[in-house]
Amino acid sequence: MPNLTLPSVLAHGLDRFQTVRSRTEELAAPLSAEDQTVQSMPDASPTKWHLAHTTWFFETFVLRPHATGYRPFDPAFDYLFNSYYEAVGPRHPRPQRGMITRPGVEEVMAYRRHVTGAMLEFLAGEHDAHGLIELGLQHEQQHQELILMDIKHALSMNPLRPAYRPAKPPDLRAAEPLAWREFEGGLVEIGYDGRGFAFDNEGPRHRCWLDSFAIAMRPVNCGEYLAFMKEGGYRRAEFWLSAGWDCVNRNGWEAPLYWEQKDGAWCVFTLSGLEPVDPARPVCHVSAFEAAAFAKWAGKRLPREAEWETAADALPECGAVWEWTASPYVAYPGYREPPGAIGEYNGKFMASQMVLRGGCSATPEGHVRPTYRNFFPPDARWMFGGIRLAEDLR
Amino acid sequence: MPNLTLPSVLAHGLDRFQTVRSRTEELAAPLSAEDQTVQSMPDASPTKWHLAHTTWFFETFVLRPHATGYRPFDPAFDYLFNSYYEAVGPRHPRPQRGMITRPGVEEVMAYRRHVTGAMLEFLAGEHDAHGLIELGLQHEQQHQELILMDIKHALSMNPLRPAYRPAKPPDLRAAEPLAWREFEGGLVEIGYDGRGFAFDNEGPRHRCWLDSFAIAMRPVNCGEYLAFMKEGGYRRAEFWLSAGWDCVNRNGWEAPLYWEQKDGAWCVFTLSGLEPVDPARPVCHVSAFEAAAFAKWAGKRLPREAEWETAADALPECGAVWEWTASPYVAYPGYREPPGAIGEYNGKFMASQMVLRGGCSATPEGHVRPTYRNFFPPDARWMFGGIRLAEDLR
Amino acid sequence: MPNLTLPSVLAHGLDRFQTVRSRTEELAAPLSAEDQTVQSMPDASPTKWHLAHTTWFFETFVLRPHATGYRPFDPAFDYLFNSYYEAVGPRHPRPQRGMITRPGVEEVMAYRRHVTGAMLEFLAGEHDAHGLIELGLQHEQQHQELILMDIKHALSMNPLRPAYRPAKPPDLRAAEPLAWREFEGGLVEIGYDGRGFAFDNEGPRHRCWLDSFAIAMRPVNCGEYLAFMKEGGYRRAEFWLSAGWDCVNRNGWEAPLYWEQKDGAWCVFTLSGLEPVDPARPVCHVSAFEAAAFAKWAGKRLPREAEWETAADALPECGAVWEWTASPYVAYPGYREPPGAIGEYNGKFMASQMVLRGGCSATPEGHVRPTYRNFFPPDARWMFGGIRLAEDLR
Amino acid sequence: MPNLTLPSVLAHGLDRFQTVRSRTEELAAPLSAEDQTVQSMPDASPTKWHLAHTTWFFETFVLRPHATGYRPFDPAFDYLFNSYYEAVGPRHPRPQRGMITRPGVEEVMAYRRHVTGAMLEFLAGEHDAHGLIELGLQHEQQHQELILMDIKHALSMNPLRPAYRPAKPPDLRAAEPLAWREFEGGLVEIGYDGRGFAFDNEGPRHRCWLDSFAIAMRPVNCGEYLAFMKEGGYRRAEFWLSAGWDCVNRNGWEAPLYWEQKDGAWCVFTLSGLEPVDPARPVCHVSAFEAAAFAKWAGKRLPREAEWETAADALPECGAVWEWTASPYVAYPGYREPPGAIGEYNGKFMASQMVLRGGCSATPEGHVRPTYRNFFPPDARWMFGGIRLAEDLR
Repeated sequence: MPNLTLPSVLAHGLDRFQTVRSRTEELAAPLSAEDQTVQSMPDASPTKWHLAHTTWFFETFVLRPHATGYRPFDPAFDYLFNSYYEAVGPRHPRPQRGMITRPGVEEVMAYRRHVTGAMLEFLAGEHDAHGLIELGLQHEQQHQELILMDIKHALSMNPLRPAYRPAKPPDLRAAEPLAWREFEGGLVEIGYDGRGFAFDNEGPRHRCWLDSFAIAMRPVNCGEYLAFMKEGGYRRAEFWLSAGWDCVNRNGWEAPLYWEQKDGAWCVFTLSGLEPVDPARPVCHVSAFEAAAFAKWAGKRLPREAEWETAADALPECGAVWEWTASPYVAYPGYREPPGAIGEYNGKFMASQMVLRGGCSATPEGHVRPTYRNFFPPDARWMFGGIRLAEDLR
Repeated sequence: MPNLTLPSVLAHGLDRFQTVRSRTEELAAPLSAEDQTVQSMPDASPTKWHLAHTTWFFETFVLRPHATGYRPFDPAFDYLFNSYYEAVGPRHPRPQRGMITRPGVEEVMAYRRHVTGAMLEFLAGEHDAHGLIELGLQHEQQHQELILMDIKHALSMNPLRPAYRPAKPPDLRAAEPLAWREFEGGLVEIGYDGRGFAFDNEGPRHRCWLDSFAIAMRPVNCGEYLAFMKEGGYRRAEFWLSAGWDCVNRNGWEAPLYWEQKDGAWCVFTLSGLEPVDPARPVCHVSAFEAAAFAKWAGKRLPREAEWETAADALPECGAVWEWTASPYVAYPGYREPPGAIGEYNGKFMASQMVLRGGCSATPEGHVRPTYRNFFPPDARWMFGGIRLAEDLR
Repeated sequence: MPNLTLPSVLAHGLDRFQTVRSRTEELAAPLSAEDQTVQSMPDASPTKWHLAHTTWFFETFVLRPHATGYRPFDPAFDYLFNSYYEAVGPRHPRPQRGMITRPGVEEVMAYRRHVTGAMLEFLAGEHDAHGLIELGLQHEQQHQELILMDIKHALSMNPLRPAYRPAKPPDLRAAEPLAWREFEGGLVEIGYDGRGFAFDNEGPRHRCWLDSFAIAMRPVNCGEYLAFMKEGGYRRAEFWLSAGWDCVNRNGWEAPLYWEQKDGAWCVFTLSGLEPVDPARPVCHVSAFEAAAFAKWAGKRLPREAEWETAADALPECGAVWEWTASPYVAYPGYREPPGAIGEYNGKFMASQMVLRGGCSATPEGHVRPTYRNFFPPDARWMFGGIRLAEDLR
Repeated sequence: MPNLTLPSVLAHGLDRFQTVRSRTEELAAPLSAEDQTVQSMPDASPTKWHLAHTTWFFETFVLRPHATGYRPFDPAFDYLFNSYYEAVGPRHPRPQRGMITRPGVEEVMAYRRHVTGAMLEFLAGEHDAHGLIELGLQHEQQHQELILMDIKHALSMNPLRPAYRPAKPPDLRAAEPLAWREFEGGLVEIGYDGRGFAFDNEGPRHRCWLDSFAIAMRPVNCGEYLAFMKEGGYRRAEFWLSAGWDCVNRNGWEAPLYWEQKDGAWCVFTLSGLEPVDPARPVCHVSAFEAAAFAKWAGKRLPREAEWETAADALPECGAVWEWTASPYVAYPGYREPPGAIGEYNGKFMASQMVLRGGCSATPEGHVRPTYRNFFPPDARWMFGGIRLAEDLR
């Protein structure tokens, strides 16, 4: 992984390490031990598990193989906090992460302190694990976002609709009109160009042919989405992919996730509790199926990921919501998985998922970058997925 | 419910109330906030829920209707902690009790203190709710047993096999030989005779004709059950009811619940962690299907509940495990449900369940009585169900 | 099985054999090869399978062991047409009976002719298999009823609502008022008394104590059931057993099976196609849960099977619909399963089923008898189950 | 759809129409009425349904709107034989096609004759429905292939392993060594070029950039696949996509569909019954997951569809098995669905499916063409899917 041994990592290694680790703990701080324990669905994980798993990553991939004399905190944690690395050994079944009441939050925090301590010692010395460490930090940052999307789902199951954090003052801006920007077709290059950090799936950089297209200058907002709903969006098969239409009917979808009607008005459950839907804000928590149906209703389409990446620098409002693309998540031409357990990082998920681009308010700094490829199954709604429109130019 | 207005209740009302309430809290004390929150399957409930629901019972059925000026602790708890009383209003779905991280354990304990305080005040005055209060206490005692059977299941899901309490020193007694006692047939009376407390389903007292039978003087022990297993008990259809055989195959049963093999020997998960199976101890955590299959293998049968009750006073070893009977759980002749929400207590569960008699080590004092009718579906294994044999005499 | 060697069987063996076998074929005659092949749900079987299985019974239990020199028609049929006899060997999974397109109807009919021919030859000689043969005929008669209830379900899946047979002229009788008859309590005897044929589960004859009761002189009719529906019967939890209420909600029940609304009026799918609901006719195709809910709504209860049997001779209108009792299906005191594969006949189904008494228009002659114990799970509706009311007398 | 109004259609319309229609009936001819009725899984359809649905297509899209005075055969067939065209109206649920015993095979054949007759009359006159008619014929040809893949699955459910047609004499050729051909990278054009017929999803023709690659000159054969199996292919997570590995474990896959072991040797169920696996024949009935796992084991990859199409003319052995590509099924740049019900033809399935290229022995003439895009979910195995390898050139 040559892309991981970067001067910037060497320069401020200790600082960055502590900043990232602390940030994770800050995110967990408002949550009680009970909050941190539950798992609201097989796809989501308890906060406590995220705290432990990101720690396990450093213990397993950095300290055990590279730090002489390192003593693992508890050998059983190997089994409990492995997420999906088949090469590392057997692991606790994902849907049962919510059954692990012990270790409790306190013990997990002790585990974090133990590993953070050992890492700081390790970082102070000479080593050639810079790439692995940066990967561990980037990985931990990914889990910071997962902590928020998972706890939002867990709290939403509680009929009391409890808040994770206090509400911000309402944003009083009116909705902006939708502007477009046109791009001439031609041969483009996309993918990781070797500068800064990137995950394996962002490369190799490669050429693509693009036809001329236009792309919207902001994501679709809730007001526009409400218009789709009012025109029978969830009841008219003609807008939907066949699998999406099945999904709508099987699950009884009639609005984005977390939307509920209260006294005739649409509200939305947020990390600050229940709030009225704001027409000017980007619509969020829609599936790829809903994104595609909305686009079809609007007479447009979703952008392909090469279009999105080509236009990225010109997009003024990016990072508010993850933006579904029309592109299934596949390997770039020439992609090879890194060897060993680390190779399980991204490649093996390249089936039946769609790419999202951009980032959201929960995305850590640095992860909102033009080449970042997020991916989820097309029916997933609990991450912060929204919609950007595109269209062909002829 | 005339059966509930009893002098004994009047005499030591306050003491008894406090004793029962404290006992529940003692049972929860060894458990962390995390332990108390999880729900390991739809049939089981979190400890925290039991703590709150038994409190809700007093608030809903005693304080709100009878205590002038009582202020409910939190109106939302009505929805959260109703178990199944349709007449009281809508309720939180049972399978999602494990999603309620808030209120946390501390708030639930405050709820308990609030209601216990109000009850003590109420009990100090004059009132005619003695029957309801005794029912509330009996109900809370039932939940004391549920707390233990549910947390045992929850902890068993943890691959670390954590213990709820320290292990007792091993019992070194050898297995006793199985003795029998014979009973002459004839017309008998069973059911609640008006002395002491009884649940509605224990009455009315009524006559039954019994043919002559013999009953075993102790429950089947693990050594005997191991012999059944060794002779292919779980692989030979001939011993099983058809629905039981389906259950064995669908679930891959090959031993009682909580049994696992370790280095070739059978161990059993207990509230004190994993222990070797003791051949002299009663076998426990078997379903009615397993009990019936064992009995058939042994050339015997399970007792009917009228037989069990008739023999009860002569049974020297009773209360070690709940004993499956051959009797489905139905209303006694002349049974009528009490009016109102309280009437939902027992009657509406009279379908597709089997009666168990006796009691187990988790059963509160006073609940191990000859007329007590416990009931569970025939495939349930997580409560403490064992086997007593009977046979026809001709 | 001493109860099966009966003079009446010896007297007219050949005639009776041919009559029963022909009757089965007459029932299949109106059905196309396609009709006879499908299986509409795991509990039901294709007509073709019934034709073959009843033949397999004679081949397996009579001809192979007792008829010297008998050549089985096709050895593969052993596997295909065994229903549930574990002792006979492996068998085709029940839910996949509808996948057997070959042998086709013609070959199955050839199988029937082959076995009927061999049986007639066998019956002409001396033998001591009279009990087995009578059991085989009774068994075939049971399947005659199953053919009708299963094909009714299969045809009901067809949106064209095809008819199995032409409609009868409408019955213009008005509904009779509901009369009751009282029975004094006391010690009664029920069960098979040794006269005529009976299945193993009808014995042994034994004593029961009954309290005084009254029983309705006719089954509940559709008019009465419509009144229950109009008063919110399917929407009011208070009438339902807990498991029944779950069933109503999970399945969206709002009327008996086969009832559908057409232009605002209730119609019912019958073997003659769709017909208007006739208020004077007994309500049919209700589950035990619906029967119990109706009884509770009416302020009555269902009869216990000992009450039903005691009253049987006094019931003027019996055999129109199977009548759900309040009794779970369990072994009578002293019951022992017959040895060998035949022992799997009835005993192993004694779990989680309810007894029905009486008979219906599809029931073969001789099967409508006071001691006959039919049994189905409490949520089953596709057999012809109706309701008779009873009540306690004090 | 300008691509459908083609001179070739005009020239030999009648002949071609009759040839295609007859071919469908020839395929059904070896099957009994029972065979033609069953549905072995929700994805497959009964033969009888295919016969009727292809007829419904002509009735609905050609005769009703275009043939003056046409009288539909039976209005109910509209509901029964619509496959998935939401715009045409409600339709019978797909998983219940096997419940339709009436109309029977004879009536369905009468329906075919009725519509074929009306079509011949219509074709003899002047009309402008040439495009629609060609689409109907192409559609019917697609169903010819479905008839064979569906009936193979249905017959495979029968433990007698019945044959659809007699076995061919064994092919005694030895396996050929695997040759490769290299292609230089560059800008290519793929998609329908306007000559001959094509489905909507084959266009528009568009440019793609390809890096240099090599492609195998024949599909992977059974001998090679057996080597993968022997090296633990189905037991080693490292070869599998995560979703594929779940699939293997959930379904217990350990060989391609239709393979079974008999006396220690691998056999395969074919349309001619059970046959030994022939190492020289292309492996077939593997999922996209198995194809990808095999390729990874072999150190290669699957071709992308643009690579496949570019190489198509150079592939000597093409049309033996459908060949899984590495490309998810998405719209080509500039693709627009045709308006109206016909627009539901291909576009709405563009989610969670993978493209297969080539054709198989069941594929009708003309459908094995370089631009044809077949598509199935990655876990589907009952169509005739095989493997062709590719690799990057650097």
